[in-house]
This record gives sequence, structure tokens and C-alpha cells, in this order.
Amino acid sequence: MNVDLPLTPDYDAWPIEADLETVSFTPRLVTVRWSDGRESRYHGIWLRENAADATTVNPATRERILDLSTLPGWPEIGDAEIDDSGALCVDFVPEDRRLRFHPGWLRAHDYDNAEDPEAPPVPVAAWQGGSGQGPDSLDASGLLDTEPASEAEEAILAPALESVLGKGLVRLRGLPTEPDSLEAIARRIGPVRPTNFGQLFDVKAKPDPDSNAYTSIALPPHVDLPTREYQPGLQMLHCLENSVEGGEAVMLDGFAVAEALRTRNPEAFATLPRVRWCYANTAKATDYVWYAPMIRLDERGELLEVRIADFLRGPLQADFEEVEPAFDALMTLQRMLREPEFAIRFTYRPGDLVIFDNRRLLHARDAFEGSSGHRWLQGCYMERDEIRSRYRMVQRARRQR
Amino acid sequence: MNVDLPLTPDYDAWPIEADLETVSFTPRLVTVRWSDGRESRYHGIWLRENAADATTVNPATRERILDLSTLPGWPEIGDAEIDDSGALCVDFVPEDRRLRFHPGWLRAHDYDNAEDPEAPPVPVAAWQGGSGQGPDSLDASGLLDTEPASEAEEAILAPALESVLGKGLVRLRGLPTEPDSLEAIARRIGPVRPTNFGQLFDVKAKPDPDSNAYTSIALPPHVDLPTREYQPGLQMLHCLENSVEGGEAVMLDGFAVAEALRTRNPEAFATLPRVRWCYANTAKATDYVWYAPMIRLDERGELLEVRIADFLRGPLQADFEEVEPAFDALMTLQRMLREPEFAIRFTYRPGDLVIFDNRRLLHARDAFEGSSGHRWLQGCYMERDEIRSRYRMVQRARRQR
Repeated sequence: MNVDLPLTPDYDAWPIEADLETVSFTPRLVTVRWSDGRESRYHGIWLRENAADATTVNPATRERILDLSTLPGWPEIGDAEIDDSGALCVDFVPEDRRLRFHPGWLRAHDYDNAEDPEAPPVPVAAWQGGSGQGPDSLDASGLLDTEPASEAEEAILAPALESVLGKGLVRLRGLPTEPDSLEAIARRIGPVRPTNFGQLFDVKAKPDPDSNAYTSIALPPHVDLPTREYQPGLQMLHCLENSVEGGEAVMLDGFAVAEALRTRNPEAFATLPRVRWCYANTAKATDYVWYAPMIRLDERGELLEVRIADFLRGPLQADFEEVEPAFDALMTLQRMLREPEFAIRFTYRPGDLVIFDNRRLLHARDAFEGSSGHRWLQGCYMERDEIRSRYRMVQRARRQR
Repeated sequence: MNVDLPLTPDYDAWPIEADLETVSFTPRLVTVRWSDGRESRYHGIWLRENAADATTVNPATRERILDLSTLPGWPEIGDAEIDDSGALCVDFVPEDRRLRFHPGWLRAHDYDNAEDPEAPPVPVAAWQGGSGQGPDSLDASGLLDTEPASEAEEAILAPALESVLGKGLVRLRGLPTEPDSLEAIARRIGPVRPTNFGQLFDVKAKPDPDSNAYTSIALPPHVDLPTREYQPGLQMLHCLENSVEGGEAVMLDGFAVAEALRTRNPEAFATLPRVRWCYANTAKATDYVWYAPMIRLDERGELLEVRIADFLRGPLQADFEEVEPAFDALMTLQRMLREPEFAIRFTYRPGDLVIFDNRRLLHARDAFEGSSGHRWLQGCYMERDEIRSRYRMVQRARRQR
């Protein structure tokens, strides 16, 4: 069976894992049975909006041009059948239009039987640390020699994307140590999100520092830029030099800590998503302030985001009665963040690049002795969308091969 | 009365609008009375975390270094008094530390009497359009000749920032028409957020377009990049050329439309924040997908965000029973988006720059006749944080003058 690609409203390939066998319909519903026995129902209005013809989608961009509310009435089904090519054909009234649907596409969008259409492409797995644990490490020494979007690039990037999606963290090794090479490396995944600290930022002890990160003091576990409405989804830290004593890197899965808090101290866990802390970075030339909870949950109580960074909090501005419970919960969390079993610890080696989810993982570092050598990381931010898009492109390429 | 600035834990100036007159305390609470009769209570633990001394804040960065949970116990108050300079002095036990608090700073963070500490600096005012209405327009012809962060720059930017914060929209006129000059203009506010469409993007009819925006067809009211976890907070569109027939710009306040929907059709309004639509942009080299409601409300039912863009929606993947109500609500909204009383319409003039809130406003355009002349806009994105930071810096500069 062969069905032309323009039958699908996008650029993807939709392998046909089962054939359409029978179809029945009512004015508002099409019901199909597949060759493996599955039954799927599709609403007429859903089919009408998601057709792939030139009245629905601009053929040049594959973007929708149909505005459902301009149709002569609620799209109802006048007839439905499976054509010789195996596609579903539906006649719509009052529009008087026959539209065809690709069976592979229909099956992939079978909302009637879908478990969780929003399930992430790689399951999110919370992790604990403890001694001897380290990040997933991958040899990426050939990355910049590969063609962009080639199979060779994909072979290096795909497992890295998977680690970031699932564990929120990966370490690539063997990368160049030229200053600013992070920009070309990052571009292999997507565009960088610049901030007031620049396109790339230099993490080293600086005179007149505008952040604790730019000193040699220890940094407690934190996310970066919680002072923004949306703290960046990804952070990359690329080691160019590291010959100091101290300065060991520490990483924790904020989701693992939050889940442990939920178990051990339900009251503190209930407080943190409710209280909106003030996050503030009032520097000499900028003044960022945002109010948000330290832990955000979705409607089902699942973790969405952590926003933890003691050195970037301003004065709490909560209801009077909430202040002591808020600080009590905060201190419970602070104590847990010091427990060694949550943390992985490692020392940056020049050429290492750590990519991590800045809305889930917390990073910290020990103090270092500035006079004992040089420690120079370059960093940048990116949105998590880029990792997901890149990962979907890898899957699409595999489907099309 | 004169109090040194290092008494405050940030770089701001805190004018003293009332003096501290009396103070009393319990182990966990300080109560002060001000010269205008106001009474304010501050928790001991809140005071301790927000002190400005060198055990609490790194003097070089003004960022907190204190971790409350490392103190020898819950910070309790041993004594409290007003010193000769008018500052509040508090002795903390068991730490055995005396800390001083600036009265202007204390007054500005009086959470005990605060109405709504998160209230935006400029009130958000929903607006209707209708014939003859246009955006707030400001002459910005001298902008690029001013010194960055000067009073002259502030005189041009401050009213523009206010319009964007309050109405979600402003039009600056008289700017240069050189290609790429948008970059220097945008930088006067903050860093640009690049995307897969580049740092700046060109809105003109292009061969092989990867978005409906890059054709000459009409675009329905929409936000940009709803396919991202966080659609950019701000969009800037800068007109370089416009000699075509058609292509009139249309803008709507998505919050005004949503509020009208809430009044006219409560059922449709209840549906839209509940249903998570699929937003998708599956181009040849990228594949962005995100699931989110079309209208987002906060815990109090106030509008947070609209995410409306028919041409960037993928197939709805909702519960079977939700599909027809979702499309019914969608079509109700689509019809409202065509009502002329919500819209303002205007024609871009070369040198115009329109800045608008891309999570609140919807923009659209009429089709234009490509062969009748040239229409060339350059655009970019930015986070709303930048407008707020810039506006706070203007306020800080005014306090310090």
C-alpha cells in the first residue's frame, strides 16, 4: 500500500503499522477498525481541521490556513470510506468537500486510545547521587568535524539529548578548549538565549564581580536566573581551564530532593508551591525581580519546576501568617540540599561540557583557591524547546531512512 | 536623618518617607510605629535573612551568602531599638549578632501592610479598538543619538515602557530605516531572544517560505511562537519599507477578547483554560511541539497569558469527551476575533517600530499585493523581564537624582 505524503499536514513520515480495515460513521463521528483489531473514533470536526489539502494547509509552509468558524456550518460527515490506496476518505457537508487522511498519520494521532499524548519522548527519571556517582559521560571529540544535521552528528548528539531529557544532565568530553568555541558547539543543538551577562558568560573570579558566580566563594545548590519570568530551560558549562585547588562541581536532581521532601515532610512540601518568593537581582545596571514559588506542580501534583537560589532571593513579601511557615519549609529544604546522598560531585576537565536542565537540576560548587591556578568555565543558556526539537528531528530522520 | 546605603541589601536608594518612632519586640517579632502613625510588624527570621551586613550579603555583589539553616538555631530577638541615625537595631540570639536596618528600606518592604507586593509597576489596562483607534505613538527619532542609560534616552524610553507595561503596545516613530538597525534599537532595552528564525527575522514575501508570515497572505490574529514552552514575552516589528497595496496591520488586546468571552459565553471561557491544545511547527529542519491551554489563568482567575495562533496548532490530543466542547469554544473565540470593535488597524510607515506583549496581544495583517511594491518588516523577540528591569532602572535613577 502506498499513500502520497501530501496526505499528511506536516513534513514528517508516518509509517503504516496497521491498515484500515473497516469504517462506519454518524454525522459527527467516524469509527475505524484497524488490521490489528484496534478501534479508533475520530470526531468529524477534528478530521476537518486536520485535513492536509490546500483549503486547510498552505502547501508552501505546511501551516494551517483554515479558520473553522468560517465554514458554512459545523462540519458533518456525509460519507466515509477506505479508498484503494488505504487512506480514509470523508465527505463533509454542508461544505460538500471530500478529504483524505493518511492511515499512518491517523494512527499516530489516535486520541481515542492515547495513553498520554503529552508524555515526554524520554521518560523523566529522578536520580539520587552519593559517592562515586557521576554524570553520563560521552566522547564528543569529533562533534565539530561532523556535518550539521548529518548521521555522524546525530550519532554523537542523540544519546546526549536522551540523557538531558531523561536525567536532566549530560557531560560531553573531548571538546575544544578554545575560548568561545561553546558558541559553535551550542549551535549544533539550537540558538543560545543571551542575557544581561552576554551571549556566553565567563565563570571565573573577576574584579568587581556582578554575581557570586564570578568570585571564588562556594555557591550553594541553585538554578540560574530565577529572577526571570521563565528561568532558562537549559544551561551549558564548558571548561576551558581548571588547575585550581577546590572548585569541585556539585549537581543535584531538584526533582529527587522535592520528592524526598514530599515523603519526609508533607507540611513543608505543601508550603513551598504555595508561597511566592521574591527573586531579585538588583545589579548596578539592571534590576530583575520576579515572584514565584520554589516548587511548581501541575494540576495532578507532578513536579513542573524548581526555583531554588538563596543568593538570588529578595525579601519575601508574603501574607504575614505565611512568613514563619515559609521560612520553616525553606530551612528544611536547605538542610536536605546539604545531604551528600543527593549530590554527584566531579571535577571539570578542560574540554568538558556539561549540559543540564536549569529548571530541574541544581548546581553548586566548592570554594576554590584563586591563587592556586586558573579555573575558567564559559557558559550559555538555551531553551528546552531546542533539545526537544532536535530530538524530534533525530526521530524523524530515523523514520525517513 | 542620614543613614548610609550599605544598610540596605541592594543597590537601590530608599527615600525615607516616615521616621521610626517606637519599637517593641517579642522573641519572634519586632513591631515598629512610624512618624505617620502606621504600625508594622516584622518577623525576626525575616529580618535576619534580609540583613545587609557582610555575614548576610557579599559586599562585592550584593548577593546573599547566608544560609539560614546553618545558624545555631531559629533566629530570635534579644533586643531591638532605634539608633541615633534612625535605623532599626536588632540583637539576634543564639547567634549573638546586632544588625541594623534602613528605615526607608524597611518601609518599602512592609509586608504586614502591603496591598499586593506583586502588583505590576504600571497597572494592566485591557483596551478595545474600533475605528479610528491606533497605538500610542511616540517620536523616537533621537533615540540612537542618546547616550545609553542617559536621561535623554530615559526621556524617550520611559513613556514607551509604560505603554508596553500597561497596554501591551507602543509605536515608536521616526527611527532609522537601515536594515538591521533594529538590533541597536532593541539593545537600548535589553538582549534579543534569538530563535530558529534568527536574531532578527525578515517579514516579507519570500521564495520557499517556512512560515505563513513570509508569504503575502492574510494572517489571522495570533501570537508568535506558541510552539515554545514559553512564547517570547515581547515582539518588536520594525518597518523598513512599505509601498504595497494592502498589508494593513491589525492588533487586538487578547485580554480584552478573553474578558468579553468570559462575560458572553462562560462555558466557552471555562473550556479554554482547561483544554491543552497542541501547538506545532514541523518545518524542514526543526520540529517544535508544545501542549498548553489557549487561555491561562492564575489561582485567582485573572488572565496570565493567551496562546492563540490557528496556523501553528497541531492536531488536538484531548480526552475524547473534550473534543467537541473544545472546538465549540474555539469557534466562538474565532468569531470574536473577527469583530472590528476589538481591533486597531494601522499602516506601517518606514521608521515605525511597534513593540508589543506577545503573551497578551494578538497581531494580524491583511493580505497584500506583492507586485504592487515592497513590504519589509524586521522583527525580533525579547523577554518581558527586560522591559520591567529597564523600567525599574528608570525609577531607581529618578529616586537617586
